[in-house]
Amino acid sequence: MHAPRELPDIAADVLARIRARRPRVHCITNAVAQNFSANVLLAAGAVPSMTIAADEIAEFVARADALLVNLGTLDPERRAAIELAVNAAGERVPWVLDPVLIDRSPPRCALAVALAARHPRAIRLNAAEFRGLAGAAPSAETLARYAAQGASVIGLTGDRDIVTDGGRSVTIRNGDPLMAKVTAMGCAASAIVAACHAVEPDAFSATAAGLILIGIAGEVAAARAHGPGTFAVEILDALHALDAATIARHARLEP
Amino acid sequence: MHAPRELPDIAADVLARIRARRPRVHCITNAVAQNFSANVLLAAGAVPSMTIAADEIAEFVARADALLVNLGTLDPERRAAIELAVNAAGERVPWVLDPVLIDRSPPRCALAVALAARHPRAIRLNAAEFRGLAGAAPSAETLARYAAQGASVIGLTGDRDIVTDGGRSVTIRNGDPLMAKVTAMGCAASAIVAACHAVEPDAFSATAAGLILIGIAGEVAAARAHGPGTFAVEILDALHALDAATIARHARLEP
Amino acid sequence: MHAPRELPDIAADVLARIRARRPRVHCITNAVAQNFSANVLLAAGAVPSMTIAADEIAEFVARADALLVNLGTLDPERRAAIELAVNAAGERVPWVLDPVLIDRSPPRCALAVALAARHPRAIRLNAAEFRGLAGAAPSAETLARYAAQGASVIGLTGDRDIVTDGGRSVTIRNGDPLMAKVTAMGCAASAIVAACHAVEPDAFSATAAGLILIGIAGEVAAARAHGPGTFAVEILDALHALDAATIARHARLEP
Repeated sequence: MHAPRELPDIAADVLARIRARRPRVHCITNAVAQNFSANVLLAAGAVPSMTIAADEIAEFVARADALLVNLGTLDPERRAAIELAVNAAGERVPWVLDPVLIDRSPPRCALAVALAARHPRAIRLNAAEFRGLAGAAPSAETLARYAAQGASVIGLTGDRDIVTDGGRSVTIRNGDPLMAKVTAMGCAASAIVAACHAVEPDAFSATAAGLILIGIAGEVAAARAHGPGTFAVEILDALHALDAATIARHARLEP
Repeated sequence: MHAPRELPDIAADVLARIRARRPRVHCITNAVAQNFSANVLLAAGAVPSMTIAADEIAEFVARADALLVNLGTLDPERRAAIELAVNAAGERVPWVLDPVLIDRSPPRCALAVALAARHPRAIRLNAAEFRGLAGAAPSAETLARYAAQGASVIGLTGDRDIVTDGGRSVTIRNGDPLMAKVTAMGCAASAIVAACHAVEPDAFSATAAGLILIGIAGEVAAARAHGPGTFAVEILDALHALDAATIARHARLEP
Repeated sequence: MHAPRELPDIAADVLARIRARRPRVHCITNAVAQNFSANVLLAAGAVPSMTIAADEIAEFVARADALLVNLGTLDPERRAAIELAVNAAGERVPWVLDPVLIDRSPPRCALAVALAARHPRAIRLNAAEFRGLAGAAPSAETLARYAAQGASVIGLTGDRDIVTDGGRSVTIRNGDPLMAKVTAMGCAASAIVAACHAVEPDAFSATAAGLILIGIAGEVAAARAHGPGTFAVEILDALHALDAATIARHARLEP
């Protein structure tokens, strides 16, 4: 079991592995998020691919190192792509679910529930989305129970982030309010989490590492930014330049 | 009737209401514009949503505070989404039409004419698009007549912007030539106009406020930018930081 | 035949013509690349259009000054749009093929082979994509032979770029490693190449000019950037400000 004080080292090590191995992360993500998510992955050292075409997605996913399934701007083509992609991922390709805005749309919520039952390595979501998925307000208990039942790590993001696999859990107090002022920041966080799963087999460590990395990059960026425009640019530079010393200095973790 | 000299105060007040109420603006907009429009809305204090899926758009629109219908990169799915969205908006949710490039495509123009007949609160367009929609070159007279007949406020943008509801009108001489060097700037202006309609029931004031806000943000951004790349970033920071004093100082309005 | 030392002047002249004539470049490109490609075209002085709707694309292409066909995130709608667009382009509208990631997907590769047989003025690709298309590793010989057989100029990009029409060839040693850290940079390069074809009838000169312009803009941007985020912003400013003196000073060409 990883005590929180080991996690900054783990996050730095996971980032080093991403840069060394350059894992390809296949993203089924919404149109608003595609460009920014791809740039976030590249800045961290990973390689994005994004096709959702039915005749090629299985091939793209089968050879990928991780898969992100994001339900934003859901359409018939993406629904079909998700089914093909999750099948192609099978047991070999770790995948992460981002159930965007399922609290706003019953059909989207039903799909998210069905996907969560297929054991994604991690589910990254906010409080309203957790309520939609689990039928309960998020608390240490409900999060841990849901994670244990589904055998997926839960990464709940908000003012503070909570990661739990049912047994272990950590609260991450990194990040900056400007992150909520840039569209697709949560989607990009999920993409980084997926990149971490590509190089780290322990799902709890991978999920926590991803949220620590994006949160600290956000803090570094906020110190240089003058608003949400410069912030969205600076977070890419910050991710690209992030090092172990910066991670150790900024990480604010609690059990 | 608002004299132009009241409009800067109205614009500042509308912006304050957007920041306080955080209205959700549902955007059916083209793929090129989605990310930038979402970031412009967030920078101004509003909340974007963007789905075009047939099985959920009615629900998203019915609970939204305003709707934007933008005809750029029109495709069958967006056509269907527009019909569902305008029906769901009904009388309750104010909606804004942006008839992008209808001068270039007869089927797109036909759709724009049909939509204009369904009484959007405002139509934001350029001179060529007005010609396509109204069959006449834009002038004080043709604009006012078209606005009065359709019961929609017209917001014509270009070197100078003209807003008219048939009775009242104002010419806005804000903005910067760099705005024409960033893709989707007009679409983003329409999104801001929609956000203003979410918090301001007077359609003339809401439309003028939106164009004043984006125009002044453009001027502030241009003073800090070194080209179209930095400009597109700085306009988000400028919108986020815009205050009543800056609006009062920069507004250049004529009856 | 243009010796490499004439090419910087030609590139500067082509850029001047783009700024003077403002050619419209219709882009069928992937969702990840649309916004950035449009901004790159605007920064260079061209005008982008991006619709892929079946009922209007022929009209958009027939009146365009150049066409870009990019195979990234291929889907049924884009497949249909490509067929309509290439037919509408006919002999009059020069078009450029960008066979993105065809090495990863057999159906995409088959489409690229069929399109290459329809004589695009130029094909912009990387080494893996050339292998997929031509069935051979890229070398001076295989590139020249493929270009001569297909009557298309080949623009191979990578650490160094090679442009050949079978008879003439040039190696371009401009650019910066950060270009590989921004998504859609290759797609944007292809868009710039298409803009050059809109104003320069000699396909070899147009293709070389496009790759010289984006490569030098990349170097200027890298000198001002602190990472991939600021780089993607600065390359737009650099393209917008690029002049003949900067091109002459930076061009690194070999026969």
